[in-house]
This record gives sequence, structure tokens and C-alpha cells, in this order.
Amino acid sequence: MSIAPVLIDGHWQPSAGKESFQSMNPATGAALDERFPVSTWADCELVLSAAAKAAAALRALGPEPIAAFLEDYANRIDAAAAELTAIANIETALPVEPRLAKAELPRTSNQLRQAAAAVRSGSWAMPTIDTKLNIRSCFEPLGPVCVFGPNNFPFAFNSVSGGDFAAAIAAGNPVIGKANTSHPATTRKLAELALEAIQATGLPPATLQLIYRLSHEDGAKLVSDSRVGATGYTGSRHAGLALKAAADQAGKPIYLELSSVNPVVILPGALSERGAELVDEFVGSALMGTGQFCTNPGLVLLMAGSATDAFIHGVSEKYKTAAAGTLLSSGVRNSLTKAIETLTKAGAKLQAGGTPIEGRCSVSNTLLTASASQFLSDPHVFQTEAFGNATLMVVANTQGETVQVLQALEGNLTGCIYSAKSGADDATYYKIAPELACKVGRMLNDKMPTGVAVSSAMNHGGPYPATGHPGFTAVGIPASLIRFGKLTCYDNVRESRLPKLLRDASPSPETWRLIDGQWQK
Amino acid sequence: MSIAPVLIDGHWQPSAGKESFQSMNPATGAALDERFPVSTWADCELVLSAAAKAAAALRALGPEPIAAFLEDYANRIDAAAAELTAIANIETALPVEPRLAKAELPRTSNQLRQAAAAVRSGSWAMPTIDTKLNIRSCFEPLGPVCVFGPNNFPFAFNSVSGGDFAAAIAAGNPVIGKANTSHPATTRKLAELALEAIQATGLPPATLQLIYRLSHEDGAKLVSDSRVGATGYTGSRHAGLALKAAADQAGKPIYLELSSVNPVVILPGALSERGAELVDEFVGSALMGTGQFCTNPGLVLLMAGSATDAFIHGVSEKYKTAAAGTLLSSGVRNSLTKAIETLTKAGAKLQAGGTPIEGRCSVSNTLLTASASQFLSDPHVFQTEAFGNATLMVVANTQGETVQVLQALEGNLTGCIYSAKSGADDATYYKIAPELACKVGRMLNDKMPTGVAVSSAMNHGGPYPATGHPGFTAVGIPASLIRFGKLTCYDNVRESRLPKLLRDASPSPETWRLIDGQWQK
Repeated sequence: MSIAPVLIDGHWQPSAGKESFQSMNPATGAALDERFPVSTWADCELVLSAAAKAAAALRALGPEPIAAFLEDYANRIDAAAAELTAIANIETALPVEPRLAKAELPRTSNQLRQAAAAVRSGSWAMPTIDTKLNIRSCFEPLGPVCVFGPNNFPFAFNSVSGGDFAAAIAAGNPVIGKANTSHPATTRKLAELALEAIQATGLPPATLQLIYRLSHEDGAKLVSDSRVGATGYTGSRHAGLALKAAADQAGKPIYLELSSVNPVVILPGALSERGAELVDEFVGSALMGTGQFCTNPGLVLLMAGSATDAFIHGVSEKYKTAAAGTLLSSGVRNSLTKAIETLTKAGAKLQAGGTPIEGRCSVSNTLLTASASQFLSDPHVFQTEAFGNATLMVVANTQGETVQVLQALEGNLTGCIYSAKSGADDATYYKIAPELACKVGRMLNDKMPTGVAVSSAMNHGGPYPATGHPGFTAVGIPASLIRFGKLTCYDNVRESRLPKLLRDASPSPETWRLIDGQWQK
Repeated sequence: MSIAPVLIDGHWQPSAGKESFQSMNPATGAALDERFPVSTWADCELVLSAAAKAAAALRALGPEPIAAFLEDYANRIDAAAAELTAIANIETALPVEPRLAKAELPRTSNQLRQAAAAVRSGSWAMPTIDTKLNIRSCFEPLGPVCVFGPNNFPFAFNSVSGGDFAAAIAAGNPVIGKANTSHPATTRKLAELALEAIQATGLPPATLQLIYRLSHEDGAKLVSDSRVGATGYTGSRHAGLALKAAADQAGKPIYLELSSVNPVVILPGALSERGAELVDEFVGSALMGTGQFCTNPGLVLLMAGSATDAFIHGVSEKYKTAAAGTLLSSGVRNSLTKAIETLTKAGAKLQAGGTPIEGRCSVSNTLLTASASQFLSDPHVFQTEAFGNATLMVVANTQGETVQVLQALEGNLTGCIYSAKSGADDATYYKIAPELACKVGRMLNDKMPTGVAVSSAMNHGGPYPATGHPGFTAVGIPASLIRFGKLTCYDNVRESRLPKLLRDASPSPETWRLIDGQWQK
């Protein structure tokens, strides 16, 4: 069986690495019919050297060709939708309809088009001008960006087409894509389309390069290389922290999205008002995509009482009757099984599911419960992320316990509070909301966290360990671009030598600039 | 001799630490007449616990009392100018006139007033509203901020009155100040004024707390404590990197300003046009404050030729005749002497100075030269920061060598290029400017880097190892506040529960908000 080539400086060429791997069809358990290489440092060296040159070339090109590339690539993704969704379906078991074809693929091309618009306007760079002192600053490209994509979004967070890719390119940087090893063929197809778009729009060939797999040592070496500008990583906490340690030591920015249990507090008044409705709403969100979303509501906090008992019973019944979805890989199944074991060993009680399904890449829909005092006896263990279709519900006896549980939370991407429309929960809301808000990147009311809109006001981020820095978002354009920018100030620089964004005349009627403290177009 | 108290939760109380230290008058070499404590973890524990409570209380108070505090404190600093500058002069040997009284103290109170204005407008928090999706986000306080101030600005970067302090407080966070041990009495006096202002404006007593010294272990423990939001540090690379390692591992943001040689390229055309003038301009900047500025031009890059020879000769003569200033401490003198030794051992040639002055806290004004090929043989060593009145001039034989030297530069706060007004250097400028710009936070033309204006467009930052992250500035309001903010998004949150900045009605006619992609007041 031949080994797929890697993409280096515009050429699909054999990897220097001799080892290879196969991905698996999680729906059948069968290994797929193709091998992908494990790159060695020799590949990385070529990639880094080409990326450094591409970074300089992109800087010289300016915004228009980059915007044209993003749009051309988006069009090619849309045109290849049937093929892309078929490949991704085989590698991930995510359904073609509606998930891949109706939701994720259009989201992906839309994101690329929004990124193109951001490039054209230039407002993302926050051009700031002090006319009195003739000091001007804006964000500029930071240098080659390594992107490590996750397993759960083969398009929208893919290292060669997703949010980090779009943000890094739009900020003017070449991308070194490291495929997620659970969907290498999807990633290759996307990179083929990207290369066509690169060629069609005249960008440097190394604007996107692709490798599939690296040893941990080479990964650490890559993100800390002097030629790298920054890294975007979405994935497991363990691997992410190893990369973070290496990048931190080298002084290289690394933006991580690691893990999150996304606490949902459902107050008694809301349950009394609309308990049955909330059961449906919750189960829909919790089991969507077999629970494999970064913002899956994995931890529910309730207050003891009959409405809470009914809610837990209602969810438990639905979990038992709903079909258990197929997980993304045997690795996900094993981690999920292990996490459930960790929680039950700590004392959580199994209300439904809890076991892997024989012969399938699945675990039965799992509901666990624990008391707040149990949770508080070992908050770290009770916050173990059970990535997949499993939920832990924690029941507090008093408002004081509820506050203590919130205070014991680690950083999360999201936090929700459901409260009565009547206002019956308002006193509790105002007591607990500040405790929750300071632990999460996005605070929701009466809404499940699983939708992450691509909005300029979105924050898909949050305090550690949800991410590596609480000031940045991975979703939402133009804010996500800032992560891959370097702030540069021009002091007394002659007008003709300034970047166009900072000259007296605005480069575009769409550009927002902060001039002497006033935002203006 | 009694030991000065520390400031914990509004009370000046004895430190739990039994060890103590004295500061020194660098002008006389005499130890000063007072002892300050080395805090142990017991002090930190009290400070952290009070800071966490103050953080919650400040959040509840909102902007107006914080703005009032900053202004009241600024007024108290102005009113106590005579006493403050006298104490600082004794501890630092910086002259009362003009440096401390005319430049640094007014800069400090002005910075606090600008911070107050930023608090009132709220624009720093970048309130962003998507009205269609009802998603809203802004920066909110991150939690208690530890500030470690440097030795070289006893007011303007002091941990209890300087830029990081002002930014952290304006972003709504309490500050845990760690005094620079070379000016503890100055810091105490400032903290006394701050406490009076805290009491006068009704802020939580622990809005500012002060300790003087910590073991390295306790420093690392402090910046990584779960109750801390972030840390601002300005000082030596060695101590800063130890704190960074600890904070990084805990996932806590730390903003560092470490070291910078601030390369200045002077092109041949500029030297031919106005060589004598440039000698004066350069020497003025390089010896100002005895060279003890973060943005001191420590590395000059020249191209071989007679104009360059004349420039080096001119600077050398001025260095020999100018009086050597008093350094901030014997520590600074020792480091400077050691750095000069490192450079001469590597092969740099001594053109002037190079030796400590007997019986004084001084080193003679020192000029070193090296060829570009020497520099390129060991770029890391030739970039050794010689903090103080010492300069290394590197002479390149070709434009190619100049580019290579720039490519070998580490990250710096600033970079300057002097070129001919006639345009004679333009071709070289366009060749080298992109190489320099990507290595520095602030790029200057025909201007020395030592002035750092408090401007909204300023970037006092730069790539590692100048700072820890290339996207943030430590000077310039409101941008410097962002470092101490946590991005929080509100998704579907009821209007009355939103922060005032994000409600439909703007809280102030001064507030800029990004609503549906349009900045508006």
C-alpha cells in the first residue's frame, strides 16, 4: 500500500518519514484503505523554511490577493461538497445530512468568506493614529502559524480550512497544518482544494502546507521553532499542555482550546415552570453529535427538590431510549469509558448507560449523578471531562452549596443559567451569576451552549484550562484574527513608508480606524 | 532598628517574615536608615485572600468610584511631589530636577488621570454587540493583579503607581504590589497616598496591598496562585523568566518586559548629511538617565565608510568627556561591568570607558565596536544587554551583512532607522525596514527611542524576549488595560442582567461600542 504524500512548498511529495498510520471508519470499525505518513524533523525543516519565505512574500502582497484566495477556496469547498462530506462521513461517522452537508460545510465556507471581508476592510488590525505625536500602530502578520485541528469538526475547525486557519491566513500568515489523525483523507482533500486556490490567486505556494502526524518531540520542536509566529491548537488537554510548555519556554504565543465541561445551572423556578420542556431541550443539546462538541453541557447543577428529581428522571428515561450515536474513533470511546469509570469510582451514581456497546464505536448514553457535597470533596475529579454522550448532574441542598460548587469550578468555555420567566429565581440568579461569569468565556441565559455562532460578539474562549489565555476568542471574525497579529507601532515614520492602513488617507471606505481617540471610517 | 510594616487589606501591619533588607543611597554608597521586611508565604496568603474579596467588591462597585480613586490618588501624588522626589532621589540618585520632578512625577499623575478617563468611558473594554443574535461581549476585570516594578522608574513604572498599576486598577482589578527593592521607601510613601485615596473614595481596602520582597519560590507561588488574575513584571530577564515559567504552568497570564538592546541603524546618507548633529542626538539619548531606560539605544548598526568612522569617533570623544552618571544600584553597576566583559571577551573592541569608577556607583561611559562578521559569529552574545551607559556599535561591510545582522536580532521594544532626507538611503531603507520591523514593537524613523509617549497609538512591547507576548503594550491608554481584562460574552442574557456597557442604551455618551460591525458612540 502506498503512503500519501505531504504538501511542502506547493508540492505533494513523499514524506521523509518511514512510519505511517491508517485512519478507521468508526461506523464499521474497519481500517481505511490508505496509509498516511508520520513526518520526521526533515519534513518540518523543509516546511519551516518554505513557510518563512512565504510569510515575507505574503507581507509584500498585501490584502487583496489574500482575500481573493479565501473566497476562491470557499467556492471550491462548496463545489466539492458532495465529495468532501462523503469522505468526512467515512472517517468520522458524522452524518452527511444534516450535520456535514447542511451545517458544518456551509459554516466553513461562510467563515472563509467572512475572513475575506475582514482582510479587505483591515479593521481587524485596529489601526490607531495619534496625529499630534505622529505615532501610529496596528496589528501586522506575526509569522507562520502552526494549526493543530481537533477530531470533532472535520471542516469547521480543520487545520487547513477551519477557524484557526481562516484567522491565521486573514491576518496575513502562512499556515502549517497538522492534520487530525482521525480524518487525514478529509484534510488532504481540503488541502488539495486550498492549493488550487493558492495557484489560482497567485499566493506563495507555501501559504498552506500539510503534514499528518509528528512525534511528540517534533511537535514540541515545531511550535517553539524561531521561524514560527504562533500556534493554534484544539484537542486533548494532555497533548495541548505538552505543546504549550514548549511554546511558552520559547516565548511563542500558543492559543489552545483544551477541555470544558460547560456547566449548566437549572434553577428550581425554571423547572417548576417548564420542566418537561427543559428535559427535551437539554437532551437535544447533550446528545447532539453524540455529545462530541467543545461546548457540550457535561455538568448540570441542580437544587434538591421534586422538580429536580423529575428532571433527572426525565433525562434518564430519554437517555435510555435514545439510540447511542457512533463516536469519532475508538480513542474517543476509550477515553469516554475511562472518564465514566473515574466519575463512578469517585462516587457518582449511574442513572443510565455507562458501558461501551459491544462491537460498535459507541458508549450507551450515560447519566451520572452526585451530591454537591460529593463534588466538593474532590472538585478536580468531578470535573473530569467525559467527552461524548455522558452527563454528570450535581444536586445541591442549599444555595450556599451551589455557590461553593461554582467557586470550585475550573475555567470553562461556557456557563448557562436557566431561571424562571416569572422572576421567581431572580434572587438566586443574582447571587450565583457573578460566580459563574468569572469562570467562563460565554455566559448564557435559558439557552443551551452547543451552538457557537460565527458572530463578531462571540467569545469561544475562557479561562484556563478551557483555553490558554482568557482574553482571546477562537470563533468570531474579526476578533479571532488578533491572535495571529503582532502589534507594531510606527513613530515618526515618513508617510510614504507607512503601511497603507496607517497613512493619512484611509485605504478603504470600509476601514475603521481609531484616530485621536475617535473611531472613524 | 525597626522593620517597616507591609500593607495588607488596608492595614499597615508587621510582616510575618523575620528577615529584612536595607536599600542604599547610590550617590553615597551608604545603606539607608531603615529596614524593610522579606515577606514569607504567610503574608502572601493574607494578601491573596484580601485581594480576592476586593476583586469581587470592585466588580460590584462599577466604574465611577474607581475613576474617582485614580484622580484622587493623582492629586495626592502631585501635592506630595516635593517629599516623593526627595525620597526617590536618595534611593535612586536620579536628579530631582528635571528628571523626577519635571518629567517622571507629572507623567505618573497624568497616566493615572488618563486611566480614570478610560474607566469612565468604558471604551477600553471593547463592548461589542450583535443585535440580531443578541450576543454581546466585552472585557471584564480578570482578578487580582500582581505588579513587580522595575528599578529605573521609581514613579512611572512603580508597582503601586505606574503604568501596570494604573492599567490593572482601571480594568477593575485590585493590585498586589511587590516593591522594587532598590526604592522601598519611595514605594511605601506612594502606597500611603494610595491608601488615603482608597479611603477617601470608598474603595475596598485591599484595592492596593504592598509587600517588599519575597523568596524566588514564594514569588513563583504567588503569580501562579488560583486567586490571581494576572501579573505584570518589568525587570531583569532572569527573574522574569522564572516567574513566567510558574505562571505559564498555572495558565495565568503574565506580561513581562524583560530586556531590549533597541537597535538603531544609521545609514550612510544620513551620516553624510548630518553626521555631527547625529552624534549629539545619539549621545543625548544613549547617556540620558545614565543609559538606564528600557528603550536605551544599546546597539547601533552602521555601514563601513568614512562617515561612519567619523560618527564613531565623534561619539567616542563625547563619551570620554561627558561625566559618567550614577547608576541606580551597585547591582546595576555589577551587571553592567559583567556585560561589558562579556562583550569584550567575545571580541568587541573598547573605544571608550569600560571600567567601574572607584568609590562610586558608576561605570565610565562605554563605547564598544565590532564588525558584522564578529556579531554574526555569535549573535546571542553580541546582543547581551548592557543596561546602563554602554553602547555597542556594529559595522557592516555590505548591505547583505546589514540584513543578516537584522535577521539575527532577537525581539526588541524598539528599532530605529536614520536615513538621508535627500532620499539617498531609500533603496537600502526599503530593503532593511521589513527585516527590522518584524523584530520590534516600535519602529522609528530619524528619532531616538528613549521617549515613550503615553499615547493611544504607542506600543511599548515587542516580540520575545523583549516581552512575553507580541500583541500587548505596557504603555498607552486604553490599550494597556486589555492585558488585565477577561473577555466575557453574554448570549441571550436578559437585558436587565447585562453589564451596563452591553445594555441597549449606552452607559455614557463617551463610550465607543462596536454594534453590528459599526463603531458608535
